[in-house]
Amino acid sequence: MIKNDLFLKALQGKVVERPPVWMMRQAGRYLPEFMQIKAKYDFFTRCQTPELASEITVQPIRRYNMDAAILFSDILVIPQAMNIDVEMKTGVGPWLPEPIRDVRDLDRVIVPNIEETLGYVMEAIAMTKEKLNDEIPLIGFAGSPWTILCYCVEGQGSKNFALAKEFCFTQADAAHQLLQKITDTTIAYLKEKVKAGVNAVQVFDSWGGMLSPTDYQEFSWKYIQQIIDALKDETHVIAFGKGCWFALDTMAKSGASALGVDWTCSPRNARYLTGGNITLQGNFDPSRLFSPPDEIKKMVKQMIDEFGKDRYIVNLGHGILPTVPVKNAAAFIEAVKEYKA
Amino acid sequence: MIKNDLFLKALQGKVVERPPVWMMRQAGRYLPEFMQIKAKYDFFTRCQTPELASEITVQPIRRYNMDAAILFSDILVIPQAMNIDVEMKTGVGPWLPEPIRDVRDLDRVIVPNIEETLGYVMEAIAMTKEKLNDEIPLIGFAGSPWTILCYCVEGQGSKNFALAKEFCFTQADAAHQLLQKITDTTIAYLKEKVKAGVNAVQVFDSWGGMLSPTDYQEFSWKYIQQIIDALKDETHVIAFGKGCWFALDTMAKSGASALGVDWTCSPRNARYLTGGNITLQGNFDPSRLFSPPDEIKKMVKQMIDEFGKDRYIVNLGHGILPTVPVKNAAAFIEAVKEYKA
Repeated sequence: MIKNDLFLKALQGKVVERPPVWMMRQAGRYLPEFMQIKAKYDFFTRCQTPELASEITVQPIRRYNMDAAILFSDILVIPQAMNIDVEMKTGVGPWLPEPIRDVRDLDRVIVPNIEETLGYVMEAIAMTKEKLNDEIPLIGFAGSPWTILCYCVEGQGSKNFALAKEFCFTQADAAHQLLQKITDTTIAYLKEKVKAGVNAVQVFDSWGGMLSPTDYQEFSWKYIQQIIDALKDETHVIAFGKGCWFALDTMAKSGASALGVDWTCSPRNARYLTGGNITLQGNFDPSRLFSPPDEIKKMVKQMIDEFGKDRYIVNLGHGILPTVPVKNAAAFIEAVKEYKA
Repeated sequence: MIKNDLFLKALQGKVVERPPVWMMRQAGRYLPEFMQIKAKYDFFTRCQTPELASEITVQPIRRYNMDAAILFSDILVIPQAMNIDVEMKTGVGPWLPEPIRDVRDLDRVIVPNIEETLGYVMEAIAMTKEKLNDEIPLIGFAGSPWTILCYCVEGQGSKNFALAKEFCFTQADAAHQLLQKITDTTIAYLKEKVKAGVNAVQVFDSWGGMLSPTDYQEFSWKYIQQIIDALKDETHVIAFGKGCWFALDTMAKSGASALGVDWTCSPRNARYLTGGNITLQGNFDPSRLFSPPDEIKKMVKQMIDEFGKDRYIVNLGHGILPTVPVKNAAAFIEAVKEYKA
């Protein structure tokens, strides 16, 4: 039994005294203690060493006591496990030296054995669960198949993922083959995570908002729905699509326990577009954490008032930025804990 | 009198036999004839030499016979005229060596005399009008004050313009001073363009969609509204905000003659959010021009059916991509000309 069950209650749609709070990328570069580890170990060493990944996961909890922890990892461990090389290049970010551009490139892409390739994630979960000592729930995550495809094809981050979209629109069969391989891998991966002890999973569709509503259904949502269908009886699934306001009506009927929304969607719009019954998570603009702490607190209070305290998980609308002052992040968390309707 | 007045009729909300069509960035790198000029003259030479700017403007018209031309220029000629250095760096794009980061940086920012600093644009307009010979209307454009601020503060393009947003959220007074200076300059600039002969102006808010609905009103829309108020009695104003679906209701009441929408907003959503009475422009996904020409034609037909042929200007949802094949751009234009309800 988890002692602080606010997060799980919100996912179940139960009445709570105040909404739970966590922050996307809460285990990250804005924390001095994270930067100390970062100085010593490179990116994939941090992901692949259970001692480091679990330590990084609990760092923000020690400092801020959020209502949920999220396992430190990266969405690109999936293509890596699928035999697609992924590097982290200074000043560039993710770098895939041999991107997928052609149906022939798919021959080398495998649906891997999860234990063999990603066993280190399961070890990190076990180790984190020990450190958390059933105080709060632990979230596991994966990128959406479309978002993973974006990196696999583009080979790096991009403003508009034009190459990834061109690939889908000119070689749709190859795109769907790749998306299905990623989906199959992701489902197996998330199931293993649930077995290893995570209490909920979140699917990040960071680049879904690059697609038209029609293309979103074809190249992104269809595969997220497969993941939800495969996981929803075993755990809570949170679906987060940045810029995907146009698909919220479909997402609300998917069987997901909650939907993440970004800050371009007002609480009122988010409730309206999702039909008012599903738990929502979000949506503070990460850049608004640069405001003075007392302003942050006022804005958080207003945000909770607008979403309503129930069926709601306080979060940012995307990951916390590396340059946010720690006291500003503290104000964000405190505002939720001090919340009175 | 303009011989082909489809575009002007659509802006006036009049019934037309088919909607007019043009493409954002239609004078650009996908055209071999543009690349020939690009090989010989650098970016600002092309903007600042009326012979070149007018030639580039009419290149796509010669090839495709669109229903409107848009003067070749750049949104960053405005900060340049305001005494903020702007360079074009190969592989980087716009590069502002001395970005605005502080209220003291504003001292050197001027509201310039338009004729002295941007007279070359007016000459380019006169020269283009001659070449167009009253066959089709000519559009002039400017960036929105917020979008210009993004570059002035960030110093270059960015995925999330985090520095620009931090500037606004920590130094709001300085941000508003800069936004007002840009607005004043833009109004004077667009008025001169109208005097020089453009038949409509478009304001591009490329980065408005980075802001929450509340921040959008404060840091972007307020200033676009000033521009519309100052221009609407003299010409047609088209307001285009990429990712700004959440503000379409406000924009529809602004006095703009038309609103641009991007491809994440379905025709049905766009009509609904704008109240159904204003002319809309858009919204084909630029990446969908990679589809085979016959597919493009089908999708364009469907798009027109969904928007309706009246109060509608066919366009892309953002600028045409440099790698689009010319025959695909041709299919897009032809589909509109062949349109039958």
